[in-house]
Amino acid sequence: MSLTNRQILLQSRPAGRPGADNFLLVETPVPELADGQVLVKHHWLSLDPYMRGRMNEGRSYAQPQPLGEVMIGGTAGEVVASRNPQFAVGDKVVGMGGWQEYAILSADQRGVLQKVDTTQVPLSAYLGPVGMPGVTAWYGLTQIIEPKAGETVVVSAASGAVGSIVGQLAKARGCRAVGIAGGPDKCGYVTGELGFDACIDYKAQRDLKSLVQALKAACPGGIDGYFENVGGTILDAVMLRMNAFGRIAMCGMISGYNGEPIPMANPSLILVSRLKLQGFIVSEHMALWPQALKELGQGVASGRIRYRESIADGIASAPEAFLGLLEGRNFGKQLVKLA
Amino acid sequence: MSLTNRQILLQSRPAGRPGADNFLLVETPVPELADGQVLVKHHWLSLDPYMRGRMNEGRSYAQPQPLGEVMIGGTAGEVVASRNPQFAVGDKVVGMGGWQEYAILSADQRGVLQKVDTTQVPLSAYLGPVGMPGVTAWYGLTQIIEPKAGETVVVSAASGAVGSIVGQLAKARGCRAVGIAGGPDKCGYVTGELGFDACIDYKAQRDLKSLVQALKAACPGGIDGYFENVGGTILDAVMLRMNAFGRIAMCGMISGYNGEPIPMANPSLILVSRLKLQGFIVSEHMALWPQALKELGQGVASGRIRYRESIADGIASAPEAFLGLLEGRNFGKQLVKLA
Repeated sequence: MSLTNRQILLQSRPAGRPGADNFLLVETPVPELADGQVLVKHHWLSLDPYMRGRMNEGRSYAQPQPLGEVMIGGTAGEVVASRNPQFAVGDKVVGMGGWQEYAILSADQRGVLQKVDTTQVPLSAYLGPVGMPGVTAWYGLTQIIEPKAGETVVVSAASGAVGSIVGQLAKARGCRAVGIAGGPDKCGYVTGELGFDACIDYKAQRDLKSLVQALKAACPGGIDGYFENVGGTILDAVMLRMNAFGRIAMCGMISGYNGEPIPMANPSLILVSRLKLQGFIVSEHMALWPQALKELGQGVASGRIRYRESIADGIASAPEAFLGLLEGRNFGKQLVKLA
Repeated sequence: MSLTNRQILLQSRPAGRPGADNFLLVETPVPELADGQVLVKHHWLSLDPYMRGRMNEGRSYAQPQPLGEVMIGGTAGEVVASRNPQFAVGDKVVGMGGWQEYAILSADQRGVLQKVDTTQVPLSAYLGPVGMPGVTAWYGLTQIIEPKAGETVVVSAASGAVGSIVGQLAKARGCRAVGIAGGPDKCGYVTGELGFDACIDYKAQRDLKSLVQALKAACPGGIDGYFENVGGTILDAVMLRMNAFGRIAMCGMISGYNGEPIPMANPSLILVSRLKLQGFIVSEHMALWPQALKELGQGVASGRIRYRESIADGIASAPEAFLGLLEGRNFGKQLVKLA
């Protein structure tokens, strides 16, 4: 009995906005396991903004995704065959399995495949609040913004997998948490379900001046910390409302992913307001993951940390779901359900 | 006998580039001293880029210079009359005496007036390498860039009062020091007299691409730390050559002082290269001044720290000298000799 794997390859690099034609769905037989290998059947594929950067050839912080190979991506699933004594059939695991239904992983490489406990935390949450997005939120907030109780923390893409956690962690630290999100539904979720103090609908505040006014109203004491997922005009507006000695954690600049870099209008504000801006990539700080995952796992298990998933069905739907993510059409963590 | 004081007032705020007509020279009698006051005869007035910001009404990190009042500025001089037991006639002092020949200072306010020892360090040096510019260099380098031996540190306005010290302190810490300055004379001074490893003449590299090429040649191992005095295209070029985890101390952005803010071309490099950018104002970190001044004073006294002064003669020459400073016509620390 041989299994068939369905995989999505990067077929071409986008010139500007990517399209479905950059991807190719193929079927391949699942090969026999070699010694030390594990066969994982994926239940969930995680779709994340960083993947857009990997599609480019240009200089980025990571190697580009090779053409003609399976798109990289975080996955959660179940071990269905194992020739590795550390993994048994039935184990729930997370790893970087890529955009495909099955993955064969050599589990001896540390961090490639991790067993997870799904008694209190759902498997998919290990791709969201208790996974890379959650740790990203935790790192930028606690290690760069370093908020003190009473301060105001703003986060863009506030209803998303990272932003939603930033605000909840800030609230837990006694801060005022203000989100920026697209549309009344997302903003209502951010203030209602997630408990942020306020949320600004950037789609209703398209120009710099009205964004600045909205930030002024939502942050009467100014802004002490900003968690940046978007860039562009939103960053310019926030910088104008930052308090002296404010900290900006640069996590993503999704607004500039598809073309020319978007300038920062007034960098002299860094000097005028004595700001710190710092970029980071969470995978470079593995030593802090256990501490972060402990807080995040307890938060999800207890229900204190809320999250929402946007679920596409089946591997063939992954490209469209990913393109939607880049345009903000997802609502919460974007996943693809594979089994 | 009554003394006459000659003072320069801010008469009007510049719209764009300032001119001599923004200033007004007046003569006023020196009033009698009240109890606790000290009369200082200024020998030296310091001219510094930060004064340009104070001439604007707009938001900056400090109160604007009031119209019709004596321009603020650091001064060094001698006590010629005292009704304060802590100061005697003949004491050499530095303070914020302003653009005038005499100042009456209430010396009970900490930091307003400081006695200095001129046996090993010339009086004027307390306005330069052993004063605010020197501490500015020390703070940005040691507290924000935090260079390690073997790293490459770049500084713009490298022949100036701040930049010249940045590079020499970096060399003393085992770094490769690379300057950016305007013209072959300044660059020759930076590499010859000051001992930098290289210096880029930005006037010979006017566009982004050639600046990037020059930086690549001067910094074969990339750039780990950048001390920013200028902004604009130079900042854009440096950011393209920064190594991962590079640090940028934002001290000044003189290129944007006269008009519209100059954008940062590609802020996503902060994320891509995981940079830290941090603005600072040295007067907000007084606790560190003694430590900085100790290193700087020993460096100047021993001759290890070299510096150069650009001296204008007489209070009436201050406006033209200041305008020249804003355009880089000075060479080294810009002073006005008043006595």
